[in-house]
Amino acid sequence: MTERVTTRTRNAAATRAAILASARRAFARAGYNGAGVREIAEGAGVTAMLVNRYFGSKEQLLAEVAADTMSGPGVLTEAFKGDDPAREIAARLVALTGTDATPLDGFQIMLRSASSARAAEIGREQIEAHHMKTVANALKGPLAPERAAMMMALIAGFQAMRQMIALTPLARGAPEDLTRLLAPLLQQLIEAPAAEKPRRRR
Amino acid sequence: MTERVTTRTRNAAATRAAILASARRAFARAGYNGAGVREIAEGAGVTAMLVNRYFGSKEQLLAEVAADTMSGPGVLTEAFKGDDPAREIAARLVALTGTDATPLDGFQIMLRSASSARAAEIGREQIEAHHMKTVANALKGPLAPERAAMMMALIAGFQAMRQMIALTPLARGAPEDLTRLLAPLLQQLIEAPAAEKPRRRR
Repeated sequence: MTERVTTRTRNAAATRAAILASARRAFARAGYNGAGVREIAEGAGVTAMLVNRYFGSKEQLLAEVAADTMSGPGVLTEAFKGDDPAREIAARLVALTGTDATPLDGFQIMLRSASSARAAEIGREQIEAHHMKTVANALKGPLAPERAAMMMALIAGFQAMRQMIALTPLARGAPEDLTRLLAPLLQQLIEAPAAEKPRRRR
Repeated sequence: MTERVTTRTRNAAATRAAILASARRAFARAGYNGAGVREIAEGAGVTAMLVNRYFGSKEQLLAEVAADTMSGPGVLTEAFKGDDPAREIAARLVALTGTDATPLDGFQIMLRSASSARAAEIGREQIEAHHMKTVANALKGPLAPERAAMMMALIAGFQAMRQMIALTPLARGAPEDLTRLLAPLLQQLIEAPAAEKPRRRR
């Protein structure tokens, strides 16, 4: 009896994982609106009804896929344990977005899905609960949430322009050069901002 | 005779403009793959055949829409005439991406269309021919194309995370704070990079 329950649990976990993997591929390719539950089910070798039984809705599926892309040890968490997180994040980001690299699908799913207001909301919730929280917790000083969000913007923009749009200087630039340009930007956001100089006030 | 030709030319220009405006709305909403020529034609009050007669293909239509979103005097060109372009670009970008502002559709069209390889290529060509060229020409010192492309990444990422995904600290942050965080990042890219310190080599 125990053995049968265990097997069933194991099968359920495998089915769940297969559906999530298929959904992740579909969302990365076509965005939230473009990916259908039927297509996701086919990719996992199950019926659409089973997808709905496991996840309830396409929204819930997107939320779990998004959470999945941001879980695990991750570049950000690891980087903040070292003594030069800016350099570490820059180097890892450059390595991960090389033209030969498998596209980082997390932000790609967000950007391609953002034409759906509900998908944008799910993306926001997941980024705020994972990446942004990791970074904001690691930052000292004022405006930590704004600085963390600005780091998300820089990372997402770099990925989009290097890997999705493939601007020539980013797609073909020397990784050392790109890292060298990216690191001080991240460093600037990691450091607490200086009080604004009086001359800036207009 | 001359008068009739002039009228006809004027009508042709108006039809062309109406098709372009409709295409721009459709691409911004649904991306390149999601927007159909039929829908674009309907939005302009013309037939799909006429759209094809004027533009030849959906590809050509996207190229002209993308070029349009990047033409005109523009934030970048103007900013580099002043004495603090970083601050100027930051302030203008923050103003243009406020939650009440009409979405900046240029990068939005690119990001939403990038799942089509051909659309990504068209986006790349247009960004490189317009925005990136404007910036790269204004920059002195080494790695100017890489720094210009990195500015595109920062601007696109900021727009996407503030306006499309609407991360809370960016969507609700004080415009002065966001400008104050953004300006030094742009400044960093405008300034020629310092030679790399030896300790960075590993």
